[in-house]
Amino acid sequence: MIPVITISRQFGSGGHSIGEQVARELGIPFYDGEIVNRVAIESGYAKELIETQGEYTNPSAVWFDMSSAGSLYFQSPQDEIFIAQKKVILECAQKGPCVIVGRCADYILRKEGIRCMNVMIHADMEHRKKRVLERYENISDVSIEKRLAKKDKQRKTYYKYYTDKNWGDFTEYDIMLDSGTLGERTCVSTICALAEVF
Amino acid sequence: MIPVITISRQFGSGGHSIGEQVARELGIPFYDGEIVNRVAIESGYAKELIETQGEYTNPSAVWFDMSSAGSLYFQSPQDEIFIAQKKVILECAQKGPCVIVGRCADYILRKEGIRCMNVMIHADMEHRKKRVLERYENISDVSIEKRLAKKDKQRKTYYKYYTDKNWGDFTEYDIMLDSGTLGERTCVSTICALAEVF
Repeated sequence: MIPVITISRQFGSGGHSIGEQVARELGIPFYDGEIVNRVAIESGYAKELIETQGEYTNPSAVWFDMSSAGSLYFQSPQDEIFIAQKKVILECAQKGPCVIVGRCADYILRKEGIRCMNVMIHADMEHRKKRVLERYENISDVSIEKRLAKKDKQRKTYYKYYTDKNWGDFTEYDIMLDSGTLGERTCVSTICALAEVF
Repeated sequence: MIPVITISRQFGSGGHSIGEQVARELGIPFYDGEIVNRVAIESGYAKELIETQGEYTNPSAVWFDMSSAGSLYFQSPQDEIFIAQKKVILECAQKGPCVIVGRCADYILRKEGIRCMNVMIHADMEHRKKRVLERYENISDVSIEKRLAKKDKQRKTYYKYYTDKNWGDFTEYDIMLDSGTLGERTCVSTICALAEVF
Protein backbone atom coordinates (compact mmCIF):
# COMPACT_ATOMS: atom_id res chain seq x y z
CA MET A 1 0.00 0.00 0.00
CA ILE A 2 1.17 3.49 -0.81
CA PRO A 3 2.61 5.08 2.35
CA VAL A 4 2.05 8.54 3.75
CA ILE A 5 4.59 10.70 1.89
CA THR A 6 6.18 13.65 3.66
CA ILE A 7 8.02 16.27 1.64
CA SER A 8 10.60 18.54 3.21
CA ARG A 9 11.95 21.18 0.87
CA GLN A 10 14.34 24.04 0.55
CA PHE A 11 12.49 27.26 -0.22
CA GLY A 12 12.34 27.73 -4.00
CA SER A 13 13.21 24.10 -4.81
CA GLY A 14 9.72 23.33 -6.12
CA GLY A 15 8.98 20.86 -3.32
CA HIS A 16 5.42 22.11 -2.87
CA SER A 17 4.62 21.78 -6.57
CA ILE A 18 6.30 18.34 -6.72
CA GLY A 19 4.23 17.19 -3.75
CA GLU A 20 1.05 18.40 -5.38
CA GLN A 21 1.81 16.53 -8.62
CA VAL A 22 2.76 13.35 -6.72
CA ALA A 23 -0.57 13.44 -4.85
CA ARG A 24 -2.49 14.00 -8.09
CA GLU A 25 -0.73 11.15 -9.93
CA LEU A 26 -1.16 8.73 -7.05
CA GLY A 27 -4.74 9.87 -6.45
CA ILE A 28 -4.21 10.66 -2.78
CA PRO A 29 -4.92 13.83 -0.73
CA PHE A 30 -2.40 16.66 -0.64
CA TYR A 31 -2.07 18.61 2.59
CA ASP A 32 -0.44 21.96 2.83
CA GLY A 33 -2.90 24.88 2.83
CA GLU A 34 -5.51 22.46 4.19
CA ILE A 35 -3.38 21.98 7.29
CA VAL A 36 -3.28 25.75 7.80
CA ASN A 37 -7.09 25.89 7.72
CA ARG A 38 -7.48 23.07 10.20
CA VAL A 39 -4.79 24.43 12.52
CA ALA A 40 -6.56 27.80 12.50
CA ILE A 41 -9.74 26.12 13.77
CA GLU A 42 -7.82 23.95 16.25
CA SER A 43 -5.66 26.71 17.74
CA GLY A 44 -7.84 29.77 17.34
CA TYR A 45 -5.00 31.65 15.63
CA ALA A 46 -5.51 33.51 12.35
CA LYS A 47 -4.60 31.71 9.12
CA GLU A 48 -2.13 34.48 8.26
CA LEU A 49 -0.26 33.94 11.52
CA ILE A 50 -0.10 30.19 10.98
CA GLU A 51 1.17 30.68 7.45
CA THR A 52 3.97 32.95 8.60
CA GLN A 53 4.74 31.28 11.95
CA GLY A 54 3.83 27.66 11.25
CA GLU A 55 7.33 26.71 10.17
CA TYR A 56 9.32 29.34 11.97
CA THR A 57 10.16 29.92 15.55
CA ASN A 58 11.98 32.32 17.74
CA PRO A 59 13.49 30.02 20.35
CA SER A 60 14.22 32.88 22.72
CA ALA A 61 10.69 34.24 22.47
CA VAL A 62 8.30 33.46 25.31
CA TRP A 63 9.54 30.55 27.35
CA PHE A 64 10.17 30.88 31.05
CA ASP A 65 10.97 27.89 33.20
CA MET A 66 10.19 29.24 36.64
CA SER A 67 11.68 26.34 38.57
CA SER A 68 11.60 28.11 41.91
CA ALA A 69 7.85 28.56 41.60
CA GLY A 70 7.17 24.93 40.71
CA SER A 71 7.39 24.18 36.97
CA LEU A 72 5.35 26.92 35.44
CA TYR A 73 6.10 27.81 31.88
CA PHE A 74 4.38 29.84 29.23
CA GLN A 75 3.83 28.47 25.76
CA SER A 76 4.68 30.81 22.94
CA PRO A 77 2.13 31.22 20.12
CA GLN A 78 4.57 29.20 17.94
CA ASP A 79 4.49 26.35 20.47
CA GLU A 80 0.70 26.38 20.48
CA ILE A 81 0.64 26.36 16.69
CA PHE A 82 3.15 23.48 16.62
CA ILE A 83 1.00 21.42 18.99
CA ALA A 84 -2.13 22.09 16.91
CA GLN A 85 -0.22 21.29 13.70
CA LYS A 86 1.05 18.01 15.15
CA LYS A 87 -2.51 16.99 16.03
CA VAL A 88 -3.81 17.87 12.55
CA ILE A 89 -0.87 16.09 10.81
CA LEU A 90 -1.52 12.90 12.80
CA GLU A 91 -5.24 13.06 11.98
CA CYS A 92 -4.48 13.49 8.25
CA ALA A 93 -1.97 10.61 8.22
CA GLN A 94 -4.29 8.29 10.14
CA LYS A 95 -6.94 8.60 7.42
CA GLY A 96 -4.66 6.86 4.91
CA PRO A 97 -2.05 7.56 2.21
CA CYS A 98 -1.49 11.26 1.51
CA VAL A 99 1.22 13.82 0.81
CA ILE A 100 2.12 16.27 3.60
CA VAL A 101 4.49 19.15 2.94
CA GLY A 102 6.88 20.52 5.60
CA ARG A 103 5.96 21.24 9.23
CA CYS A 104 8.24 18.49 10.69
CA ALA A 105 5.70 15.90 9.46
CA ASP A 106 8.54 13.41 8.81
CA TYR A 107 9.64 13.59 12.45
CA ILE A 108 6.12 13.67 13.91
CA LEU A 109 4.96 10.57 11.97
CA ARG A 110 8.11 8.49 12.55
CA LYS A 111 8.01 9.26 16.26
CA GLU A 112 4.41 8.04 16.44
CA GLY A 113 5.36 4.89 14.51
CA ILE A 114 3.23 5.78 11.48
CA ARG A 115 4.54 4.25 8.25
CA CYS A 116 5.79 7.04 6.02
CA MET A 117 8.22 7.68 3.18
CA ASN A 118 10.24 10.79 3.93
CA VAL A 119 11.37 12.79 0.92
CA MET A 120 13.53 15.89 0.77
CA ILE A 121 13.77 18.20 -2.24
CA HIS A 122 16.65 20.63 -2.63
CA ALA A 123 18.40 22.62 -5.34
CA ASP A 124 21.35 24.95 -5.59
CA MET A 125 21.02 28.72 -5.18
CA GLU A 126 21.04 29.42 -8.94
CA HIS A 127 18.16 27.04 -9.71
CA ARG A 128 16.12 28.30 -6.75
CA LYS A 129 16.73 31.95 -7.60
CA LYS A 130 15.66 31.35 -11.19
CA ARG A 131 12.50 29.53 -10.06
CA VAL A 132 11.46 32.20 -7.56
CA LEU A 133 12.19 35.08 -9.96
CA GLU A 134 10.00 33.42 -12.61
CA ARG A 135 7.11 33.19 -10.16
CA TYR A 136 7.25 36.38 -8.12
CA GLU A 137 7.38 39.92 -9.41
CA ASN A 138 9.09 42.88 -7.76
CA ILE A 139 11.90 40.84 -6.27
CA SER A 140 15.38 41.97 -7.14
CA ASP A 141 18.23 39.58 -7.88
CA VAL A 142 20.02 40.62 -4.71
CA SER A 143 17.12 40.50 -2.28
CA ILE A 144 16.06 37.05 -3.44
CA GLU A 145 19.43 35.53 -2.46
CA LYS A 146 19.10 37.01 1.01
CA ARG A 147 15.50 35.85 1.24
CA LEU A 148 16.39 32.26 0.27
CA ALA A 149 19.24 32.14 2.78
CA LYS A 150 16.95 33.52 5.49
CA LYS A 151 14.17 30.99 4.75
CA ASP A 152 16.72 28.13 4.85
CA LYS A 153 17.94 29.36 8.22
CA GLN A 154 14.40 29.71 9.59
CA ARG A 155 13.44 26.16 8.55
CA LYS A 156 16.64 24.74 10.03
CA THR A 157 16.02 26.56 13.32
CA TYR A 158 12.39 25.50 13.46
CA TYR A 159 13.23 21.84 12.79
CA LYS A 160 16.06 21.83 15.34
CA TYR A 161 13.90 23.52 17.97
CA TYR A 162 10.98 21.10 17.74
CA THR A 163 12.76 17.84 16.86
CA ASP A 164 16.28 18.29 18.25
CA LYS A 165 17.48 16.90 14.91
CA ASN A 166 19.21 18.54 12.00
CA TRP A 167 17.01 19.56 9.06
CA GLY A 168 18.54 18.15 5.88
CA ASP A 169 20.54 15.44 7.68
CA PHE A 170 20.36 12.39 5.38
CA THR A 171 19.63 10.02 8.25
CA GLU A 172 16.12 11.53 8.49
CA TYR A 173 15.05 10.84 4.88
CA ASP A 174 14.43 7.86 2.62
CA ILE A 175 14.94 9.86 -0.57
CA MET A 176 16.65 13.17 -1.25
CA LEU A 177 16.52 14.65 -4.73
CA ASP A 178 18.10 17.68 -6.36
CA SER A 179 15.24 19.21 -8.36
CA GLY A 180 17.68 21.61 -10.02
CA THR A 181 19.79 18.95 -11.75
CA LEU A 182 17.05 16.30 -12.11
CA GLY A 183 14.10 18.53 -13.01
CA GLU A 184 10.66 18.69 -11.40
CA ARG A 185 9.03 16.09 -13.66
CA THR A 186 11.74 13.50 -12.95
CA CYS A 187 11.39 14.11 -9.21
CA VAL A 188 7.62 13.51 -9.46
CA SER A 189 7.96 10.25 -11.41
CA THR A 190 10.75 8.98 -9.14
CA ILE A 191 8.74 9.62 -5.97
CA CYS A 192 5.62 8.01 -7.48
CA ALA A 193 7.58 4.93 -8.58
CA LEU A 194 9.19 4.56 -5.16
CA ALA A 195 5.88 5.03 -3.34
CA GLU A 196 4.42 2.08 -5.29
CA VAL A 197 7.12 -0.31 -3.99
CA PHE A 198 7.82 1.20 -0.56
CA MET B 1 23.77 10.12 -22.88
CA ILE B 2 24.23 8.28 -19.62
CA PRO B 3 26.47 10.34 -17.30
CA VAL B 4 29.40 9.22 -15.21
CA ILE B 5 27.81 7.99 -11.98
CA THR B 6 29.63 8.41 -8.70
CA ILE B 7 28.50 6.48 -5.65
CA SER B 8 29.36 7.60 -2.14
CA ARG B 9 28.24 5.20 0.55
CA GLN B 10 28.12 4.58 4.24
CA PHE B 11 30.06 1.46 5.16
CA GLY B 12 27.69 -1.50 5.19
CA SER B 13 24.93 0.25 3.21
CA GLY B 14 25.45 -1.93 0.12
CA GLY B 15 26.65 1.01 -2.00
CA HIS B 16 29.43 -1.02 -3.62
CA SER B 17 27.07 -3.82 -4.61
CA ILE B 18 24.43 -1.31 -5.83
CA GLY B 19 27.07 0.42 -7.97
CA GLU B 20 28.16 -2.90 -9.46
CA GLN B 21 24.56 -3.82 -10.39
CA VAL B 22 23.89 -0.35 -11.87
CA ALA B 23 27.00 -0.65 -14.07
CA ARG B 24 25.97 -4.14 -15.20
CA GLU B 25 22.40 -3.10 -16.05
CA LEU B 26 23.50 0.01 -17.91
CA GLY B 27 26.33 -1.88 -19.64
CA ILE B 28 29.03 0.56 -18.51
CA PRO B 29 32.36 -0.03 -16.68
CA PHE B 30 32.46 -0.27 -12.89
CA TYR B 31 35.52 1.13 -11.14
CA ASP B 32 36.45 0.26 -7.62
CA GLY B 33 39.12 -2.44 -7.32
CA GLU B 34 40.28 -1.45 -10.80
CA ILE B 35 41.16 2.00 -9.48
CA VAL B 36 43.26 0.42 -6.74
CA ASN B 37 45.26 -1.52 -9.36
CA ARG B 38 45.89 1.55 -11.48
CA VAL B 39 46.78 3.72 -8.51
CA ALA B 40 49.30 1.08 -7.41
CA ILE B 41 51.04 1.36 -10.79
CA GLU B 42 50.77 5.17 -10.82
CA SER B 43 52.02 5.77 -7.28
CA GLY B 44 54.34 2.85 -6.69
CA TYR B 45 52.54 1.98 -3.44
CA ALA B 46 51.38 -1.57 -2.66
CA LYS B 47 47.74 -2.44 -3.42
CA GLU B 48 47.17 -3.34 0.23
CA LEU B 49 48.28 0.13 1.34
CA ILE B 50 45.99 1.81 -1.21
CA GLU B 51 43.09 -0.34 -0.12
CA THR B 52 43.55 0.60 3.52
CA GLN B 53 44.73 4.22 3.05
CA GLY B 54 42.96 5.21 -0.20
CA GLU B 55 39.92 6.58 1.61
CA TYR B 56 41.43 7.43 4.96
CA THR B 57 43.84 10.04 6.11
CA ASN B 58 45.62 11.21 9.17
CA PRO B 59 45.58 14.98 8.76
CA SER B 60 48.26 15.48 11.37
CA ALA B 61 50.58 12.93 9.77
CA VAL B 62 53.48 14.22 7.66
CA TRP B 63 52.82 17.74 6.48
CA PHE B 64 55.24 20.53 7.21
CA ASP B 65 54.92 23.93 5.67
CA MET B 66 58.40 25.34 6.22
CA SER B 67 57.56 28.89 5.17
CA SER B 68 60.79 30.36 6.45
CA ALA B 69 62.78 28.09 4.15
CA GLY B 70 60.73 28.98 1.08
CA SER B 71 57.64 26.81 0.59
CA LEU B 72 58.99 23.35 1.15
CA TYR B 73 56.52 20.74 2.28
CA PHE B 74 56.50 16.98 2.46
CA GLN B 75 53.63 14.98 1.03
CA SER B 76 52.31 12.18 3.17
CA PRO B 77 51.83 8.76 1.52
CA GLN B 78 48.06 9.46 1.76
CA ASP B 79 48.52 12.70 -0.19
CA GLU B 80 50.50 10.88 -2.87
CA ILE B 81 47.83 8.21 -3.09
CA PHE B 82 45.10 10.89 -3.32
CA ILE B 83 46.90 12.62 -6.18
CA ALA B 84 47.39 9.33 -8.05
CA GLN B 85 43.74 8.40 -7.39
CA LYS B 86 42.54 11.74 -8.72
CA LYS B 87 44.52 11.22 -11.93
CA VAL B 88 43.14 7.71 -12.39
CA ILE B 89 39.54 8.82 -11.65
CA LEU B 90 39.77 11.60 -14.25
CA GLU B 91 41.19 9.15 -16.82
CA CYS B 92 38.37 6.66 -16.16
CA ALA B 93 35.67 9.37 -16.42
CA GLN B 94 37.11 10.85 -19.60
CA LYS B 95 36.72 7.50 -21.37
CA GLY B 96 32.91 7.75 -21.09
CA PRO B 97 29.98 6.73 -18.89
CA CYS B 98 30.96 4.53 -15.94
CA VAL B 99 30.27 3.97 -12.24
CA ILE B 100 32.95 5.07 -9.76
CA VAL B 101 32.62 4.18 -6.07
CA GLY B 102 33.94 6.43 -3.28
CA ARG B 103 37.30 8.21 -3.27
CA CYS B 104 35.86 11.76 -3.49
CA ALA B 105 35.09 11.07 -7.18
CA ASP B 106 31.96 13.29 -6.93
CA TYR B 107 34.05 16.28 -5.85
CA ILE B 108 36.95 15.59 -8.23
CA LEU B 109 34.72 15.32 -11.31
CA ARG B 110 32.50 18.32 -10.52
CA LYS B 111 35.54 20.48 -9.85
CA GLU B 112 36.95 19.54 -13.25
CA GLY B 113 33.61 20.30 -14.89
CA ILE B 114 32.98 16.69 -15.92
CA ARG B 115 29.27 15.87 -16.22
CA CYS B 116 28.37 13.41 -13.51
CA MET B 117 25.39 12.21 -11.47
CA ASN B 118 26.35 12.04 -7.81
CA VAL B 119 24.58 9.39 -5.75
CA MET B 120 24.82 8.68 -2.05
CA ILE B 121 23.66 5.47 -0.40
CA HIS B 122 23.06 5.27 3.32
CA ALA B 123 21.18 3.12 5.84
CA ASP B 124 20.57 3.12 9.56
CA MET B 125 22.81 1.25 11.98
CA GLU B 126 20.47 -1.76 12.30
CA HIS B 127 20.31 -2.41 8.54
CA ARG B 128 24.05 -1.95 8.13
CA LYS B 129 24.87 -4.19 11.09
CA LYS B 130 22.62 -6.93 9.71
CA ARG B 131 24.17 -6.65 6.25
CA VAL B 132 27.76 -6.81 7.53
CA LEU B 133 27.04 -9.67 9.95
CA GLU B 134 25.52 -11.71 7.09
CA ARG B 135 28.65 -11.25 4.99
CA TYR B 136 31.55 -11.44 7.43
CA GLU B 137 32.25 -14.14 9.95
CA ASN B 138 33.95 -13.73 13.31
CA ILE B 139 32.57 -10.26 13.95
CA SER B 140 30.69 -9.83 17.19
CA ASP B 141 27.56 -7.75 17.49
CA VAL B 142 29.37 -5.23 19.66
CA SER B 143 32.53 -4.83 17.61
CA ILE B 144 30.60 -4.30 14.39
CA GLU B 145 28.86 -1.21 15.76
CA LYS B 146 32.19 0.28 16.75
CA ARG B 147 33.66 -0.65 13.38
CA LEU B 148 30.80 1.00 11.46
CA ALA B 149 31.05 4.18 13.52
CA LYS B 150 34.83 4.25 12.98
CA LYS B 151 34.52 3.78 9.20
CA ASP B 152 31.93 6.58 9.01
CA LYS B 153 34.27 8.86 10.90
CA GLN B 154 37.24 7.97 8.70
CA ARG B 155 35.31 8.67 5.49
CA LYS B 156 34.03 11.98 6.81
CA THR B 157 37.54 13.03 7.83
CA TYR B 158 39.03 11.97 4.51
CA TYR B 159 36.37 13.83 2.52
CA LYS B 160 36.72 16.98 4.63
CA TYR B 161 40.50 16.91 4.41
CA TYR B 162 40.70 16.65 0.63
CA THR B 163 37.60 18.58 -0.43
CA ASP B 164 36.95 21.00 2.48
CA LYS B 165 33.31 19.97 2.19
CA ASN B 166 31.13 17.83 4.42
CA TRP B 167 30.66 14.20 3.41
CA GLY B 168 26.95 13.43 3.36
CA ASP B 169 25.88 17.10 2.95
CA PHE B 170 22.89 17.01 0.57
CA THR B 171 24.18 19.94 -1.46
CA GLU B 172 26.87 17.64 -2.89
CA TYR B 173 24.53 14.98 -4.30
CA ASP B 174 21.85 14.66 -6.97
CA ILE B 175 20.28 11.60 -5.34
CA MET B 176 20.48 10.18 -1.83
CA LEU B 177 18.78 6.89 -1.06
CA ASP B 178 18.23 4.89 2.11
CA SER B 179 19.04 1.32 1.06
CA GLY B 180 17.72 0.05 4.39
CA THR B 181 14.15 1.24 3.92
CA LEU B 182 14.05 1.09 0.09
CA GLY B 183 16.00 -2.14 -0.47
CA GLU B 184 19.01 -2.72 -2.72
CA ARG B 185 17.02 -3.68 -5.83
CA THR B 186 14.88 -0.54 -5.68
CA CYS B 187 18.00 1.60 -5.32
CA VAL B 188 19.50 -0.05 -8.42
CA SER B 189 16.39 0.46 -10.57
CA THR B 190 15.94 4.07 -9.37
CA ILE B 191 19.55 5.00 -10.19
CA CYS B 192 19.33 3.30 -13.62
CA ALA B 193 16.06 5.10 -14.46
CA LEU B 194 17.48 8.47 -13.39
CA ALA B 195 20.72 7.93 -15.33
CA GLU B 196 18.71 7.42 -18.53
CA VAL B 197 17.06 10.86 -18.24
CA PHE B 198 19.84 12.83 -16.49
